[in-house]
Amino acid sequence: MNGGRRPTLEMVALRAGVGRGTVSRVINGSDQVSPATRAAVQNAIAELGYVPNHAARTLVTRRTDTIALVVSEPDERLFAQPFFADIVRGVSAVLNEREQQLLLATSRSADEHDRLGDYLTGHHVDGVLLVSLHRDDPLPDRLAEAGVPCVIGGRPQWQTRYPIHYVDIDNIGGAYMATRRLIQTGRRRIATVAGPHDMVAGEDRLEGYRKALRDSGRAAPGELIARGDFSFESGEAAMRRLLAAVPDLDGLFVASDPMALAAIRTLRDVGLRVPDDVAVIGYDDSSFASHSDPPLTTVHQPTERMGAEMVRVLIDTVVPKAAGSSRLILDPHLVIRESG
Amino acid sequence: MNGGRRPTLEMVALRAGVGRGTVSRVINGSDQVSPATRAAVQNAIAELGYVPNHAARTLVTRRTDTIALVVSEPDERLFAQPFFADIVRGVSAVLNEREQQLLLATSRSADEHDRLGDYLTGHHVDGVLLVSLHRDDPLPDRLAEAGVPCVIGGRPQWQTRYPIHYVDIDNIGGAYMATRRLIQTGRRRIATVAGPHDMVAGEDRLEGYRKALRDSGRAAPGELIARGDFSFESGEAAMRRLLAAVPDLDGLFVASDPMALAAIRTLRDVGLRVPDDVAVIGYDDSSFASHSDPPLTTVHQPTERMGAEMVRVLIDTVVPKAAGSSRLILDPHLVIRESG
Repeated sequence: MNGGRRPTLEMVALRAGVGRGTVSRVINGSDQVSPATRAAVQNAIAELGYVPNHAARTLVTRRTDTIALVVSEPDERLFAQPFFADIVRGVSAVLNEREQQLLLATSRSADEHDRLGDYLTGHHVDGVLLVSLHRDDPLPDRLAEAGVPCVIGGRPQWQTRYPIHYVDIDNIGGAYMATRRLIQTGRRRIATVAGPHDMVAGEDRLEGYRKALRDSGRAAPGELIARGDFSFESGEAAMRRLLAAVPDLDGLFVASDPMALAAIRTLRDVGLRVPDDVAVIGYDDSSFASHSDPPLTTVHQPTERMGAEMVRVLIDTVVPKAAGSSRLILDPHLVIRESG
Repeated sequence: MNGGRRPTLEMVALRAGVGRGTVSRVINGSDQVSPATRAAVQNAIAELGYVPNHAARTLVTRRTDTIALVVSEPDERLFAQPFFADIVRGVSAVLNEREQQLLLATSRSADEHDRLGDYLTGHHVDGVLLVSLHRDDPLPDRLAEAGVPCVIGGRPQWQTRYPIHYVDIDNIGGAYMATRRLIQTGRRRIATVAGPHDMVAGEDRLEGYRKALRDSGRAAPGELIARGDFSFESGEAAMRRLLAAVPDLDGLFVASDPMALAAIRTLRDVGLRVPDDVAVIGYDDSSFASHSDPPLTTVHQPTERMGAEMVRVLIDTVVPKAAGSSRLILDPHLVIRESG
C-alpha cells in the first residue's frame, strides 16, 4: 500500500532493485531483459498495483503516439468548409480507438510550409495525414525524404520517386453522375463552376463533367466553364462570369456545396428561379446542403470514412514500414433533393 | 557559386573550417564563440549567400517555435461553435507575425487529457494556450508541474499553488447589460438559459443575470433558470423545461448564441413570437447571429482579440519566465438587433 498515491514507475524500479529503463523494457515486452529480472519487475508491478502509463511506454519506443493532420489551406478555411470537420471526425474516431493523439495544423504560405516541415521532421509526431494538397506543396517530398510516414487524402498530382500512400474519393465518377442527371432531366445548356487548376479534386470533377457531356454527344466549350477555389466567395464571382458569357444556361454543375449556394444566391439576385429556370447540383453533401433553400441536390462524398481510412492506412501499413505504395478509392453517390 | 542550389549550413561549416554546432551558435548570437571563429563563419555565410533557416536556429536553442492551442471539448464542438474559430483566427494571426507554428488539439475524456498531457510535457512545444476549461481539467496543474509555459483563456475556477496567467472577457458585465436591457424594455418575467456549472463562463453569466435582477429589486427564483452546455441541442431541452415551469415568461437571456437560436426555434414551435411575446438576447455575437430570423440581439465578445492577447502574454511574459501571474480582462458590449 502507498497511502492512496498512484504507484509510479520509479516505485516499481526501487522495489525491484533495477533502473527505470529496465522497468520500461519489461513493460514494452523487450527481449533484452533476463528472465530473472523480468520476474522481479513483474512481481513489483503486481505488489504495488502499478498501471503502466503512456509516458513509460513511449520512454523506450521513442514513439510519440501522436499523428498530425495537416490541412494545406489558410486557417479560416478549416472552419468555413464543413468538408474538413467531417475529415477530422473520421480521423479522430479511429485515433481514439487506437489511443493516439491528434494534432491539427494548417499551412498555406511558403513560410508556413517551411516551419511546419521543420516541426514534422523533428521527431515530434509518428506520422502525418495531408489533405487539400495543391500542386506546389513541398510537404509530401520533404516528409518522404526525412522518412516520416505520411498518407495523403486525395490523389497526388505529381510524379515522385517515393512510394505514395493515399485514400481518394472517385471525383470523376461523382461529377459524371451529377452532370448526367442534368442531361437526363432535359437541361440543354449545362455549365459548370469548376474547382481550382492546382488541385486534383478540381481537375477530376471538371473531367467528369466533360466526360458526361461527351458521352451524350455534346461539346463543352470554354465559355461553359468558370473556375472557383471551392469557397463561397469564389462561387459568386464565377457565377457572374458564367451569366455574362452564357445568359441562356439552364443547368449547372458546381464542384463544391459552398460555391453551389453562392451560385443559387447569385441566380436569384438576377431574377432566375432554381430549379425552374436553372437546375443546380453541388458537390460534398455538407451538413447545410439539406437545409438550403431549395434543398441542394449534391454528390455525397464519404468524407468521414476517408478520414478514418487514412488513419488505418497510416497506422497499419505506413508506420510499420510495410513495402510499396497503397491507394484506396472510395465511391461517392448522388443525393437528389430539389435544386436540380 | 553553387550551381543554383541553396547553400546549406553544412556548406558554411565546411567553408569556415568549423563544425555545424559552431555555425549554429554564431547564427543564434551565442557568446561562446571566439571573435576569430565568428568572423570566419560570418565570411563564409556572406560568400555563400547562406540564409539561416529555422531548423538551424532551433538546433541550438532547442526551441520548437511551436505553440499548442488546446480546446477542452470533444472535437465536434471545435467546429460546431464559432467561438473557437474566432479564437483560432486571433491566435494564428499573432503566431504568424511571430513566425511560430500553431498546433490545435482537443481533449475532453480523462484518457485524452492523460495522452495530451504526456505530449505537451514531452518537449514538443514551447508553450500551451488552454481554452474552454472545465473544473476537473487536470492539464493546468500538470503543465505547471512540468514547467511548460501556459496561458488560460477565461478565468480559472480553482485554487492552485502555481502562478497563473489568463486572459478573460468580463462575463458578469456582459450578462448584466443583456439582462438590464430586457428589464428596461419592460419585460416582467425574465428567465435565463444558463451555461454549465463546471465552467466559469457559465457561472459568471448566471451571476450577471442575477445581479441585474437584484439591482432592479427583483428575485431570480430557481424556476427561472435552466442549464445548458452552450450547445444548440442543450438549448432546445432547456427552453422546453423553462416553458413547462414558467409558461408566462416574456424575456429570456441565453448564455450562448447557439442556445439562443435553439430557444427561438423552440418558442416558435409552441406558437410564441420573438420578440413580440418573448424577447431573446444571446451571447457571443457569432458570425450567424446577424443572419438569424429575427436577427439576434446578443453580447459581443472580443473573442478574436482574446486569442491574440493570449499569444502575446505567452510569448512576451510566460515563455521568457517573467515573474508573477498575469490577468487581463477584456470588455464585451451589447449588439442590439431585433430579437430582444
